[in-house]
Amino acid sequence: MLYTVLINVMPLKDLLDPQGKAVLGGLKNLQINNVKDIRIGKHISLQIEAGDEAEAKNVADIAASKLLANPVMEYYEINVIANS
Amino acid sequence: MLYTVLINVMPLKDLLDPQGKAVLGGLKNLQINNVKDIRIGKHISLQIEAGDEAEAKNVADIAASKLLANPVMEYYEINVIANS
Repeated sequence: MLYTVLINVMPLKDLLDPQGKAVLGGLKNLQINNVKDIRIGKHISLQIEAGDEAEAKNVADIAASKLLANPVMEYYEINVIANS
Repeated sequence: MLYTVLINVMPLKDLLDPQGKAVLGGLKNLQINNVKDIRIGKHISLQIEAGDEAEAKNVADIAASKLLANPVMEYYEINVIANS
């Protein structure tokens, strides 16, 4: 069965996010002043062929830890969605 | 009140996603073969000061359409989370 797995890779909470700070400056230039903080990461959507949801999540976890996220600077969260 | 707003900016479904294709090749090199497709976009978390949820969503929508997403190549979806 084909599962859609969504992974969010975000900069660790304690680290400065220079990309977010730059976008915050850009919003101020557009006169949008009620945004107080921005953090920017990656949103990754995978189609995984697996026997069940746990197996799909396991494959996504291996992919995220080995390739998609850099654990020194980033953390990730995984959501599995069963395709209808 | 401070709202957490999550925006996902993804490449349009009809467009090729070269970054996703590259990562798919990387996974194959790691012997992870049951991933069939990958699309990679941005996950943006904003802290927005607003009177209510609709106002927070409206600010996020303006920010996304003016700065965060390129409508020629990307679409976005917005989720508002009320902070406790």
